[in-house]
Formats: sequence, structure tokens, C-alpha cells
Amino acid sequence: MELVVPDLSGPVPISGSTRLYAVLGAPVEQVRAPSLLNPLFARLGIDAVLFPVHVEPDAFAGVLHGLTRMKNLDGILVTIPHKAAALRLADEVSPAAEVAGAVNALRREPDGRWSGENFDGAGFVRGLTEAGHLPGGRRIVLMGAGGAGSAIAAALLAAGAAHLTVCDPDAARLRELVARLEEHWPGRATGEADPPLGEADIVVNATPLGMRPDDPQPFSVRGLPPRCVVADVIMKPRETALLKAAAALGHPIHHGAHMLDHQLDLYRTFFRLDAPPGQ
Amino acid sequence: MELVVPDLSGPVPISGSTRLYAVLGAPVEQVRAPSLLNPLFARLGIDAVLFPVHVEPDAFAGVLHGLTRMKNLDGILVTIPHKAAALRLADEVSPAAEVAGAVNALRREPDGRWSGENFDGAGFVRGLTEAGHLPGGRRIVLMGAGGAGSAIAAALLAAGAAHLTVCDPDAARLRELVARLEEHWPGRATGEADPPLGEADIVVNATPLGMRPDDPQPFSVRGLPPRCVVADVIMKPRETALLKAAAALGHPIHHGAHMLDHQLDLYRTFFRLDAPPGQ
Repeated sequence: MELVVPDLSGPVPISGSTRLYAVLGAPVEQVRAPSLLNPLFARLGIDAVLFPVHVEPDAFAGVLHGLTRMKNLDGILVTIPHKAAALRLADEVSPAAEVAGAVNALRREPDGRWSGENFDGAGFVRGLTEAGHLPGGRRIVLMGAGGAGSAIAAALLAAGAAHLTVCDPDAARLRELVARLEEHWPGRATGEADPPLGEADIVVNATPLGMRPDDPQPFSVRGLPPRCVVADVIMKPRETALLKAAAALGHPIHHGAHMLDHQLDLYRTFFRLDAPPGQ
Repeated sequence: MELVVPDLSGPVPISGSTRLYAVLGAPVEQVRAPSLLNPLFARLGIDAVLFPVHVEPDAFAGVLHGLTRMKNLDGILVTIPHKAAALRLADEVSPAAEVAGAVNALRREPDGRWSGENFDGAGFVRGLTEAGHLPGGRRIVLMGAGGAGSAIAAALLAAGAAHLTVCDPDAARLRELVARLEEHWPGRATGEADPPLGEADIVVNATPLGMRPDDPQPFSVRGLPPRCVVADVIMKPRETALLKAAAALGHPIHHGAHMLDHQLDLYRTFFRLDAPPGQ
């Protein structure tokens, strides 16, 4: 007879001494940060909890202000649609966040100021590379010039993409992103109303289209060349309508989950999440 | 060989769909609400988490505003020193909260308004009664005219106390409390600078004195008549210096924990915490 020892190491119970982290989005049901970071806290023996916050854009500044005034709250994650607003409200931001025009993590510094960082781009490129889809030298089409799209654009060019075409129905924010990219990587990024799908090696959806069951697809996969990689940043559902359609036509696909999987170590370093002394 | 089956029913893991409750105080390390309500959520199979928020008085209004704008947050508990401020900021309050001048629970109503209730008084009197210290017909001295003190004053008079003397170094708030009590129970409550300990049947500490190791005691137990009951509302430490000193002189003592123990059912009803259908 074998004894199966159950894992009883579950979450640290929440008490008055528990430190706080929050993740803000609208909607927020799909965020995976709570199910990734809370088990990490438990593994490290850190008395902390990350909770999801559903906040609409008109209330974002007020909610963020309230969170930063909680003395036992140490960190904030920000997701769609608040990443650009978070950049404007941070006391200081990293160069990566500056270029991306978006912040997805805020940390309380020892002097009480809140500094913003962006890991979307680095996390996405790390995931893409580890899946064997190296962006270096490739022609890439990116749908969406919002927070995630901007961060991914900067990271793809930093990783050596030959050319990047960004598409977004908001002409003003598209123009602004291309201008920021042009400063750092002149001549390698353009903005287009219609995606040049026929020449793409990799196409990335960085719009929110695909989160809701009745969303239209961000583009038609029928115009893609054979072997073109189709990547999505949407994490829930894992198999978006776009990825299903691409897979049905034989395209290699890349799931949104990879972006966050590869951000976990980056978050851990940023939030200085070390096991307490003696563990 | 006996098989011991471990209880694996632990907390529901936190995900993006988890509903939120918060408890606000300064300090907040001592609050027991997280360790009482989170296990209750787990027992009922409710996907919700209560987290502690440390907020100083100058930031209370901003933090409360931010919390009420979180669309997935359903309830707020308030403890020292924010109960009077919570009354002012609630959209509507119950009669019990109105008389107490303090709110310790806020609930989001279906129309989006936030209504405030106060369970300190009812919880305290229920605990005192179940411990055999019936307040009816007794002469009672109450130290502290703040949020907890005001709520307890109203509940003690409602429960038939013969006379209540309230003491507080803040003369203005003491006068205001006695005026509110006088409206409902004329001639049965007075405010005094010095507690008339020699004639008391029950003395209640409703000040924060005793939470910190170097706090002075709220009054000297040496002046109490024999058999006078000494009650504290402080929950942590359980054995305050006051209760230790009273016990050493042979007085019956009543711990602060009873107040919250007897509030749990009241909170459950107020927040409409029922097991999901089918459980």
C-alpha cells in the first residue's frame, strides 16, 4: 500500500499583517496574475495576497490613488485598458515603459514614490523566442497600438525584427507610437490602416478582440502566407477564435499565456519577492 | 491502522472572478476580521476574499472612495479610528449607526449606493449577556466616546442599563454623544471627566489604550468595588494590561474578542453571505 502525501502547503492565511498587491483591469475576470502570484507567495513563505480589482476607465485615477494610500499595499499590476493611464499617474517610469507608452507594474519605493515598469514586451518576446519563433530578421505585423501593443512593438524591434507594421483604428495613437519607435529604431516601423498580411512572417494580435465570445476577429487569417506564425496576447479564453481559425489553416500558433508565464520571474525581481530570512 | 483524513477544504483560490471585501483601520495588524470571514467564505463555498487595509485618517476619504469604485468589491468593514468618518461618507445609515455616530460596515446596495450599519454595540451586548453579565438594571461606566464607545453606549441603554456614565478626554465629542443618548433615553446617561468607579457594576474600556505595550491603562482598577465586571473591547492582545490588573484583584473580566465573535452572524446577514445555489 502506497501512502500519498497531499500537498498541505496551501496559501498563507490572510491576517491583519498580510501585505497587499492588486491587479487592475476592466474586465478583470480573465486575469491570471492572482493564480500565478498567490501560489508564488505561498511557495516563498511570504505573507502577502494579490487580489483582482475591476475598475472602469473613468474611475481608474481615483482607485489608483486610493490603492497608493494603503500603507500595507506594496505593488500594483495594471492590465487592459489602464496601461497608458498608469504611465501618466506614476511618479517615475523606466525607459521601457516610456517607449511603450504604458505601465503594467507599479512599485512603492522606499521614499514613498511609485515607479512604473513595463514587462509586456520583454515577456512576450521571451515567450516567442522560447517557442522557437525568433523575431530577429522577420517581417512582423502587429494589431493594436494600445498598452500591450506598444510594449510589444518596442521589444520586437529591440530583438531585431527586420520590419514592423502596426495597425490600429485610432489614427492618433498609432501615429504617436510610430513616432516613438522611429526615435529609437529609425526606418524599421510603419503604421498602416490595413494590415499587409500577405508579406508577414509573424502576426500578433495585441487588441482586446477575442476576450468576449461575440467579438469579431482582429483580422482575417485567410490572407496570410503559409507558415506565418499567428500569436495572440489574450489569455482567457486560451484558444481564441483567431487562434482556432489560424490553426485550422495549418498556421503555427502562439498562445497569450506565454507572455505572462515569462513575466513571472520579471515581476518577482521587480517586487523584490524574496523568501523571508531563515527560509 | 487508522486513516486520518486531513481537511483539504481550505480557502477558495483567488482568481480574477473573486469578489472583494476590505477591513480598514490604523493600525490594522490586530484586526481579526480576515481570520474570521475568510474561513466563513471557504465554508460556504463563496468565491470571495477579505483583505486588511492600513489607512491613516488623512487618507481615509480617498481610500474609501477608491474602494467603492471597485466594481468587484461588495463590502467594507471599518475599525478604529475611522468609524465616525465612515458615517459621514456613507450614502445612508441605519438608525443604530446614526445614534452611535459611527459606522463599522458598509454594503453596496443594488442601486449602487453605500449603506452603513453598526454592529459594535449589538455584538458587545450580546457577548456580555451570553457571558452572564446582564447589563439590565446595572450602573455602568464606559471609557471612550469614539466609534466603538458610542455604539456600545447606545446598545447598553437599549438593553436596559440603569445608568451609564461616559468618560472621554475630548469634551466636545463627549457632550455630543451624551446629547444623542439623551434624545433616546432621557435622564439615564451622563458625561464625566473622571469615572465614578466606586459605584460601578460594570466598567467598559472602549478606548484604544491597551493595543500597544507601552500604553497607559485607561483607568485604575484599584478604585473598583468588589465583583465589578471589567470589560475591554481591545482584541489584540487578548489579555490587555487592564484585564490582567483586574483579574489579579479578583474582578470578573470580559475579553474584547467576544464583541466580534458575536458580530459574525450579524455580518453574514448584512452582507447576504449565503452559500451559492446547489451547495
